[in-house]
Amino acid sequence: MKNPPSLDQLIAALKVLPGVGPKSAQRMAFHLLQRDKAGADKLARALDRALLNLRHCERCHTFSETPLCNVCADDKRRQEVLCVVEMPADLLMLEQTRCYDGLYFVLMGRLSPMDGVGPKDIDLERLIARACDGVVAEVIVATNFTAEGEVTAHLIAEMLKAQGLKVTRIARGMPVGGELEYVDPGTLAQAMYERRTLS
Amino acid sequence: MKNPPSLDQLIAALKVLPGVGPKSAQRMAFHLLQRDKAGADKLARALDRALLNLRHCERCHTFSETPLCNVCADDKRRQEVLCVVEMPADLLMLEQTRCYDGLYFVLMGRLSPMDGVGPKDIDLERLIARACDGVVAEVIVATNFTAEGEVTAHLIAEMLKAQGLKVTRIARGMPVGGELEYVDPGTLAQAMYERRTLS
Repeated sequence: MKNPPSLDQLIAALKVLPGVGPKSAQRMAFHLLQRDKAGADKLARALDRALLNLRHCERCHTFSETPLCNVCADDKRRQEVLCVVEMPADLLMLEQTRCYDGLYFVLMGRLSPMDGVGPKDIDLERLIARACDGVVAEVIVATNFTAEGEVTAHLIAEMLKAQGLKVTRIARGMPVGGELEYVDPGTLAQAMYERRTLS
Repeated sequence: MKNPPSLDQLIAALKVLPGVGPKSAQRMAFHLLQRDKAGADKLARALDRALLNLRHCERCHTFSETPLCNVCADDKRRQEVLCVVEMPADLLMLEQTRCYDGLYFVLMGRLSPMDGVGPKDIDLERLIARACDGVVAEVIVATNFTAEGEVTAHLIAEMLKAQGLKVTRIARGMPVGGELEYVDPGTLAQAMYERRTLS
């Protein structure tokens, strides 16, 4: 007994999703076919539409249906600050904080020498060109505080400082509402090391 | 800043998958659009093909592209034993054991009074009709050993015994290779309770 070919193909196709292995793919396929055919059809249509309509913003490289994304097209945003993030999800998180009214540059990745991802793969030349437009005065590096994110931040900072730009990095430290007892030692050590003078 | 509509629609559509919440859906959408457009297209096509081609086997109700599935169409299988399982995945697992050469009936669900799933929702009448074809002599109930699976097994057994059929249940007990120290107490108690006389 084997699965019918179109079922096997669907299971195989679902495995392209990150974090989905053979067992989950099978469970998803059965769920869609047995309980949510309308959802399956909606998913197929949404994939087609997204593949057709989505491109990258010409300025910041995030996903957009228009040549310029909403943020880049918004002339009320401060044009002289540029925040560099790894992924569109990071941009969205920062927008949710409502604390930033400058522009972004989305790397669409991070340096990861272990995985063979070098400076050319994340197109740092485009970032340099964007940051050196004569308007940007400060580049805020908001890559993750992972090993890869830190390496990326370091290289970006070196490259941009060589161009005479002011480069800053978002702060490390205790989370808001965080208790010393429950925070991880690395974060606490960093919070101690980067302590600020209260005026 | 909001996502472009077609990206939001894709994220919403991915949430139809079981176990996928807003964060995973976003991660999946970014992954597909950024790193695996070919995979996204493959998935859309596979969904369309599966929705178009897959139906239920007329005899056992599992997924099939043909009126009868491979197992039901195979006249070398023993026609007088019928094994009742909850889902197609269970049928596949039993087939992988290569220990069973009879036929199946797939309930496509289980009784779950707590979720409002009653006997009519899993179509037990079809099972009775199938089991009372005059050929089936034994029905092996292989629903899960969960609360729902056990309730389902109990009701099926009562209904089929009333029709004069022999009804059996797959055994509970220690897993093969299992060590008493590491097995859960319920399983061990059951293994003790259902102990067999060695001849």
